[in-house]
Amino acid sequence: MSGALAVVGLGPGNPDTMTPEAAMALASADALYGYGPYLDRVPVRPGQMRHASDNREEGSRAAAALDHAARGAKVAMVSGGDPGVFAMAAAVCEQIESGDESWRRLDVSVVPGVTAMLAVAARVGAPLGHDFCAISLSDNLKPWDVIERRLDAAASAGFVTALYNPISRARPWQLGNAFERLRRHLAPSTPIVFGRAVGRPDENVIVTTLEAADPSVADMATLIIIGSAMTRVIARPGLAPLVYTPRSIQGSGA
Amino acid sequence: MSGALAVVGLGPGNPDTMTPEAAMALASADALYGYGPYLDRVPVRPGQMRHASDNREEGSRAAAALDHAARGAKVAMVSGGDPGVFAMAAAVCEQIESGDESWRRLDVSVVPGVTAMLAVAARVGAPLGHDFCAISLSDNLKPWDVIERRLDAAASAGFVTALYNPISRARPWQLGNAFERLRRHLAPSTPIVFGRAVGRPDENVIVTTLEAADPSVADMATLIIIGSAMTRVIARPGLAPLVYTPRSIQGSGA
Repeated sequence: MSGALAVVGLGPGNPDTMTPEAAMALASADALYGYGPYLDRVPVRPGQMRHASDNREEGSRAAAALDHAARGAKVAMVSGGDPGVFAMAAAVCEQIESGDESWRRLDVSVVPGVTAMLAVAARVGAPLGHDFCAISLSDNLKPWDVIERRLDAAASAGFVTALYNPISRARPWQLGNAFERLRRHLAPSTPIVFGRAVGRPDENVIVTTLEAADPSVADMATLIIIGSAMTRVIARPGLAPLVYTPRSIQGSGA
Repeated sequence: MSGALAVVGLGPGNPDTMTPEAAMALASADALYGYGPYLDRVPVRPGQMRHASDNREEGSRAAAALDHAARGAKVAMVSGGDPGVFAMAAAVCEQIESGDESWRRLDVSVVPGVTAMLAVAARVGAPLGHDFCAISLSDNLKPWDVIERRLDAAASAGFVTALYNPISRARPWQLGNAFERLRRHLAPSTPIVFGRAVGRPDENVIVTTLEAADPSVADMATLIIIGSAMTRVIARPGLAPLVYTPRSIQGSGA
């Protein structure tokens, strides 16, 4: 019997946004590993083991899952959104590279999912309709000056930017600092979208401007989209506005 | 009776990678609009109208779908991957902004999907595991010098880059030019992934280096991932290599 590890993306939260491929990978596993609140979204199956761990323990969680798979089990690692975007797939690869030689012979697969920026963008229109980038604001794993340099590069080259991990109790000032930094490059009227828990009962989506953006409305479950100079807001009578970035640029402006 | 338009993402191609939310939106529509090959992926339902159009006709296709919805129908616009990423959601918003006033009162929704870069990344490991951006290489809708400036900005700030629309019969030189441009910033050994038709029977995934990258292996259905200086390749005995970008940066290097 040879083991396998599937790193599975649940999508943004509503079960209707998880792919059938992900549901099948979860249903066929002998054991599930994951951050507790993500595991809680997976239906309980008799005989299937569940190993919940804390938010900060990605490395040890990945190693435990690989070790379990190496002993012959079919293991699924549960990840929110898409496992390849600031989530568990990279943590698993890190452990494979540095860990036990036998882990390189395991059948490892990644099952993609709808990542938060796609879910938030869909709720408001098409803000990611043109070139864009995704930046994690967490400076737990990289220096803050690298993050600042990337915010500068993205905003000055005309990318729309999705900010993951914008704020937490341990990182209270980074988001406000990022907004300040972006104000050097972008007009006060630049559209900003705060999208929290999209598809879940506590969903909250706010469309505002860079001038008015208040970091304190964000939390760990919030994804923020920063428009470019091209991003537009369409007012609609009696309906929420649409936010979108056109597909075309005329002339040579960025 | 009031009409509605849902812009629906099919995901990368395999039906198991389309969300239940998308399947329900398609099944409940009175009429489907879309690029012919995407419409062909949707099961035929008796009584449901189907309006196929050509690749280049996004604007007129969006206007026709909005007009149909404004006459009281439940219309679904079919999009490959995620409709918000270089796809139909922005085209629909453009028509709403410039078109008939009544279109602003329509119930318009976007149903997200797994976009190509997530599907390709999942196939090889986690190349998008750290900060990344997505750039369309098509200069049909923007000047080539804007694209060059964005490639420079992304590569020099340490982003991994996903290239959409890399090449077509009408745009044969752009991808080779982009590789040349990127060689100014990135080492010859930088990992490059070509992912074609992931999840479909004709899937083809190639892991190579910037030095060896050959533009002629790409076509319209190919998504290309350009690693950063941090992106790593793990050799595995008897298995395809894993490509991933670690979550952390030590010190202050980009």
